[in-house]
Amino acid sequence: MKSLDVATLDRAAIYRLLSGLIVPRPIAWVSSVSRSGVNNLAAFSFFTVVGNDPPLIGFSCNMTKPRGLKDTQVNIHDTGEFVVNIVDRDTLVQMDLSAEPYPPEVDEFVAAGLTPAWDTLRVKAPRVAESPAQFECRHERTVDFGEYAFIVGEVLAVHLRDGLTDERLRVDFDAFQWVGRLTGGQYCEKTAGFRVSEGGEH
Amino acid sequence: MKSLDVATLDRAAIYRLLSGLIVPRPIAWVSSVSRSGVNNLAAFSFFTVVGNDPPLIGFSCNMTKPRGLKDTQVNIHDTGEFVVNIVDRDTLVQMDLSAEPYPPEVDEFVAAGLTPAWDTLRVKAPRVAESPAQFECRHERTVDFGEYAFIVGEVLAVHLRDGLTDERLRVDFDAFQWVGRLTGGQYCEKTAGFRVSEGGEH
Repeated sequence: MKSLDVATLDRAAIYRLLSGLIVPRPIAWVSSVSRSGVNNLAAFSFFTVVGNDPPLIGFSCNMTKPRGLKDTQVNIHDTGEFVVNIVDRDTLVQMDLSAEPYPPEVDEFVAAGLTPAWDTLRVKAPRVAESPAQFECRHERTVDFGEYAFIVGEVLAVHLRDGLTDERLRVDFDAFQWVGRLTGGQYCEKTAGFRVSEGGEH
Repeated sequence: MKSLDVATLDRAAIYRLLSGLIVPRPIAWVSSVSRSGVNNLAAFSFFTVVGNDPPLIGFSCNMTKPRGLKDTQVNIHDTGEFVVNIVDRDTLVQMDLSAEPYPPEVDEFVAAGLTPAWDTLRVKAPRVAESPAQFECRHERTVDFGEYAFIVGEVLAVHLRDGLTDERLRVDFDAFQWVGRLTGGQYCEKTAGFRVSEGGEH
């Protein structure tokens, strides 16, 4: 076994350990609009549910990295609104394309061949029409963590493709072709889920 | 397509949507020690990296749910320290066992047949010897989100099983049998990762 004090490691090595061992990760595919009306799409895999009452979800973005991340942050802080689109196997390639580092004037919907749907109920940002499910969010707060900003949104509305859930809003895992993020540009895709006990949620 | 205003949904339905669609999730298997010296282990899948400089990881726990969650929170707030153990296929059944709702006086290491290793470098909490990798954490802050507390730790030291990474600390995905959390007590396990482009990290 290797036991290492983090003070002896460089930042790139720490990143490799965190992003390589904290897997598989869900992906927040975030759409927003700039003050001047340009649509933006970007993907974040440091992403989690943070609360349920009120429903809150958050993602962390590196404020120093030139990958379009700043556009997302600026737009959310300017407009107070965004949409988290869920990625599935059919939208993964387009998600990956939209995550390229484009300049602020580029609309990633156009760059990735995606359809912005403006039928959102509560926020003025488009959802990705090709995504199987979307969460409309109002910016709740941003918590600063060194070089990273943890951006939290309150979920105000949801859009669900027909057949994705049953009447009680339980997700049908036969219908949902989920994908996840591993490390170094790698993804994983749905396999059969399994149980190890009769235990409930944790 | 179903479009729903969250204000029309009950909390259980919202939970089903968030935990069913934000998948696959990494698992934080958290060890801590109470003020009176009882070891605690609990699992959380609302878990993410939040920063890299300093290295920070965080998990959200429901403060109202009687599943040993409170023990973790009380211990971390009392002692300021904890360990996040990574779960793999070999430790999944024991992780699931340790996540049962035990009273505070129960040591989940004993209940689940696990070995507490006290060779931690920077914190006074045991790591799970059977886990392939562990992060020693100092409590950095807790952010309140309604019924949930988002507990953030600064990673001070790491322990890595031999063969889990190369010399540059890149995780070897042939050696790491990762598992993830789906919803409703279901897990997923490692499959071959794949790339969809030459893109880097996001």
